[in-house]
Amino acid sequence: MLTRIDHVGIAVASLEEAIPRYEAAFGLTVAHQETNEAQGVREAMLLVHKGDTGGSYVQLLEPIREDTPVGKFLAKKGPGIHHIAYGVGDIDSALAALTVAGFDLVNKTPVHGTAGSRIAFMHPKGVGGVLTELVEAPEGH
Amino acid sequence: MLTRIDHVGIAVASLEEAIPRYEAAFGLTVAHQETNEAQGVREAMLLVHKGDTGGSYVQLLEPIREDTPVGKFLAKKGPGIHHIAYGVGDIDSALAALTVAGFDLVNKTPVHGTAGSRIAFMHPKGVGGVLTELVEAPEGH
Repeated sequence: MLTRIDHVGIAVASLEEAIPRYEAAFGLTVAHQETNEAQGVREAMLLVHKGDTGGSYVQLLEPIREDTPVGKFLAKKGPGIHHIAYGVGDIDSALAALTVAGFDLVNKTPVHGTAGSRIAFMHPKGVGGVLTELVEAPEGH
Repeated sequence: MLTRIDHVGIAVASLEEAIPRYEAAFGLTVAHQETNEAQGVREAMLLVHKGDTGGSYVQLLEPIREDTPVGKFLAKKGPGIHHIAYGVGDIDSALAALTVAGFDLVNKTPVHGTAGSRIAFMHPKGVGGVLTELVEAPEGH
């Protein structure tokens, strides 16, 4: 079902502070940046590696308000890893299979993700406390 | 410097419980299992994808005692994502470059990692609260 580790989402207080740190440490560069109002974040995707099944990224997430999931995460736990996202070829099939297998989904149907991707989150309780996202890359990616 | 996301390390109370969950959810299978006394863990590597620069894995970590880093993490935060590990081609050069750039290292020289790899951890404070590991795969991998 999974084609790659698409990204690891990291909650940060400030993109302006976090991006230069990742550039300085690892020579990563920003491949994409956008604001996702529905998810309540400003985000930057830093490319780690482009493989045969797509890219793997560090995703830096800055909340746009305190009353957002990432804003609450930062307030409660401080900056750090927020979620992991796996690439899938067909997210509709993947969500159907997970539902049949008894896993609870935060998003029963895909929602808008980074750069036109289709994404869905699984409930952490079903996968050992890990907020887990599935990503179907946009056409042509 | 980075060649891939090598793995995401997930702290679990029990490998026997967590492995079947990841098998059921995503069809992942255990590629490798070992006990690392120095790191204080029993671990299982579940292959997500084998790419041109090496494998990407979910690493499930069960502490061998409570007074280990993962044991303390579990007691304090509960099960969840513990660290992220990036592949590098030459870990000695990578650690030298990070030191020159002013990043603090937990391991100033590489230690024994999964399946004969050479690894080193960076201090979380330098990279936005994220425990970050570098991995040089063993010869021939």
